[in-house]
Formats: sequence, C-alpha cells, structure tokens
Amino acid sequence: MADGIYDRLNGIGVHEVIIESPDHATDLDSLPLQNIEDCLQAFQSRILDLKKNTRLHYILIFKNHGEAAGATLEHTHSQLIALPIVPELVSDELAGARRFFETRNLCIFCAIIAQDKKDGNRVVIENDRFLTLCPYAPRFPFEMWLLPKFHSARFEDMDAEDIAQLARLLKETLLRMRRALDGPPFNLVLHTSPVNGNHGKHYHWHIEIMPKLTKMAGFEQGTGFYINPVFPESAAETLRNIKIQSS
Amino acid sequence: MADGIYDRLNGIGVHEVIIESPDHATDLDSLPLQNIEDCLQAFQSRILDLKKNTRLHYILIFKNHGEAAGATLEHTHSQLIALPIVPELVSDELAGARRFFETRNLCIFCAIIAQDKKDGNRVVIENDRFLTLCPYAPRFPFEMWLLPKFHSARFEDMDAEDIAQLARLLKETLLRMRRALDGPPFNLVLHTSPVNGNHGKHYHWHIEIMPKLTKMAGFEQGTGFYINPVFPESAAETLRNIKIQSS
Repeated sequence: MADGIYDRLNGIGVHEVIIESPDHATDLDSLPLQNIEDCLQAFQSRILDLKKNTRLHYILIFKNHGEAAGATLEHTHSQLIALPIVPELVSDELAGARRFFETRNLCIFCAIIAQDKKDGNRVVIENDRFLTLCPYAPRFPFEMWLLPKFHSARFEDMDAEDIAQLARLLKETLLRMRRALDGPPFNLVLHTSPVNGNHGKHYHWHIEIMPKLTKMAGFEQGTGFYINPVFPESAAETLRNIKIQSS
Repeated sequence: MADGIYDRLNGIGVHEVIIESPDHATDLDSLPLQNIEDCLQAFQSRILDLKKNTRLHYILIFKNHGEAAGATLEHTHSQLIALPIVPELVSDELAGARRFFETRNLCIFCAIIAQDKKDGNRVVIENDRFLTLCPYAPRFPFEMWLLPKFHSARFEDMDAEDIAQLARLLKETLLRMRRALDGPPFNLVLHTSPVNGNHGKHYHWHIEIMPKLTKMAGFEQGTGFYINPVFPESAAETLRNIKIQSS
C-alpha cells in the first residue's frame, strides 16, 4: 500500500524448525550417520513439498549453532524459511554465476572445484561425490564450502547414495571444525536454485559453513567488505591435520 | 596477479584511529560539546587532507562502541579507513539515489526528510540544520539516521555552525539511545560522497547509528534480508520520551 514515498508490502511465507534428534543432543556431528542422513532427507522432502505452493519462490535452509551465531534453542535443529521472492543475495550469486558461464561456457563452481583440487591446499576432505574446501576469498576465518563434485543446481535432486555421502562429509567436516576451534558457534546455509527459473547450467548447489570467530562492525557495515586475518590455505591445513577416527 | 581462475589484488589504503578525548572517557556523549565539535572537525580535516592522495577513492569514518559491536579499545575513539576503490555498498547506495533522482528529479534523502517531517512519528529530535530519524525500513531495532536538513553530498563541506549544530544533535541522540537501551553496543557509520565522481545532485551525506541488539544469523547470511521486530515509529517514540536536561 502506497504511503507517500513509501510502500508497505504484504508477504506470505513458511517457517519450519527441523528438530534433528529426538534426544537432547546439542551437536549435529555427534549424531549417528543414519540420523544425519534422515535430516538431509527431511530437508529434501520439505523442499519437494513446499515447491508445490506456487507463491513460494525461494526455500532457504539454514542452521544457527550457539548463542553468538543467533541460536535461541540449544537442542540441535535447523530451520527452513520459504519466501515469496528470490532474495537479493541469491539473485546476486545467480547473476555472477550466469556471467561466468556466458564468458567461459563453464559452471563457476565446477571451475572452483577443478582449480582447488589442482592446487590442493584449500581442500579439507573429500569422498567420491562431495568435497569440503576453504574458498579462495573467504569472508570469515575458517569459512568452508561443501559442494557436490558433480554438476547439480538443486539440492533436492540428490539420490540416496548422494545423501549417504553428504551425511558422512558433513559429519566429518563439523567434527573437524569443532575440534580445531573448540566448538565454535557457527552458521550453516544451504545455497540452492530458486523454485523457478532456468539455472540448471550455470548454478551449482552447495552448503556454506561460517564459524563465528570475528564480529561484523562499522567497517563491514559501511563497505560490505570483510576483514579476515586467516588465509584459507592455513585454515584448510589446520582442519586437515585434526586426527579423527575414520567413520 | 592471475593464479588460474583467481586474481590476487594488491591494495593501498590508510587506517587512522581518532582518539576522541585525552581523558579515559568511554562514551562520546559524555564529552563536552566543544570536544565533540573538535572530533567532527578532526574528521573533516583528515578527509580534506587524504583527498589530496589521488590513489584513495573512498574515505570511510566509523565508530564501534562496545565489545559486541567489534570495539577492541574501551577509550572512546573513531576510525578512518581510506580505500583505493569505492566499496560495493556505497556504489549500491549511490546507484539507488541516482535512479530516484532520474525518475523524480529530487534527492531521495531530501524526500525522506520531507515525508518523515510530515508524518512526524519517525523523527526523534531536530534542530535548525539537522535531524535524527528512525528510517522507514530499518534493518536493525532502533537504527537511527542523522541528516542535514539542507541538501549536501559531502560531510567535509560543513561550515563551523553546521559542525556546532551536528555536535549538539549527535550528543543528544547518543544520550537518548544510551538511556533508552541501557548503554548498548553500537556502530556508527558516516555515509558521504566518494572522492571522485559527480554525486552532488542526487546524494546526501548522513550518519547511520545501529545499536547491536540482534544477531546476524543464517537467515540474514542466506538472504541479505534483516529481521527487525521493532517498528521505527515505536523506537522513535521511546527515544523522544527520554527525559534529558536541555543542553
């Protein structure tokens, strides 16, 4: 409704809390593998269900762990928020990926995976279908991305074996982070294709994990730039060197 | 230097800490008015000096107050960071202001001031030359903007009377915020025209103050949207109702 120079928008949306364990666990990586698979499958089935509602244009899944990362519940959980529009950050990422594709006829995330596997020193762990890396220009110390090594724009297109492999990679990634950084607060955000639009060629779904070790302050708020004192190569080395029992 | 698909940039820049008082004061608003005027004058003279360096394209002045807002020093201080490029957030704000100007032949900030004075309920305080308002679509609870009521693109163009009036408005705004919110951590960011470019008609310098009452979490990081449970009209009313001795 117009109100002088301003508009007030009405909105619709969905907010769901995904409780990751019936027991009072506080850490996702402490759950059995099958339980983590069940969580990923729950994400998938909620996305597939909500996509039927044509008023929802983007489905965001994220996890806040620890009070400093905005969590208000201790019991391990994730959240789903479905929105009536594609959010600005997602459109920006899609537009960047499209520009790269138009110039090079190549998915930028596939290019990152190839380059980082060649360089080697930013890869944390990998299995047949997925890998975890510390991105080349991380906003936050120990920022990590989990990506499918095969090209895929939509999280919900995973098959059962993908889910099993992602669960293993996610559990081990979180465990390494917990050991390396003494159980830090963190945010985890799924980046996947919007419900509509043709993003299959240039977009590549992935999960971003950002431990909360630094604070957003005036510089970040005034510029949109981030100050990160840790090289991704050092973060990846620290995470690789954590000794864990093979799962 | 190109490194496969990546580029590493070299940069130049300036970082200065402006110590706001020779005494160990912790709150800018507790300083005498003359002292606050001296700080604003120091900002102005540092900008005028650094503008002579043609490699610097943007000069950011900001203040982090309190540990949760990223401050690492307790002694009241501000910071100046001069950058070799115009940061993305600033270009976005300039582009938005330019679009509004091209459509309506009017500065968007002048339009906001006129609308908010007409509506009345988002204005916190004002004097002859400046006003403090809670913006219509605030990202954060109790976000406040301090704007000159006259059109001006550059902070450093203020005359002595402007500085005296801004000092009074800033002191009272911070004092009201401190009383209303029990001395919250906050960030203060000066938004002013880049060193180069022709922004005199469509841009309007201002100061944004953001108390740190909520946490950036997965939703904000996945969307660029902000969840704010406080209407600006309620925040402005609370701030207006604070009883202070007239200065």
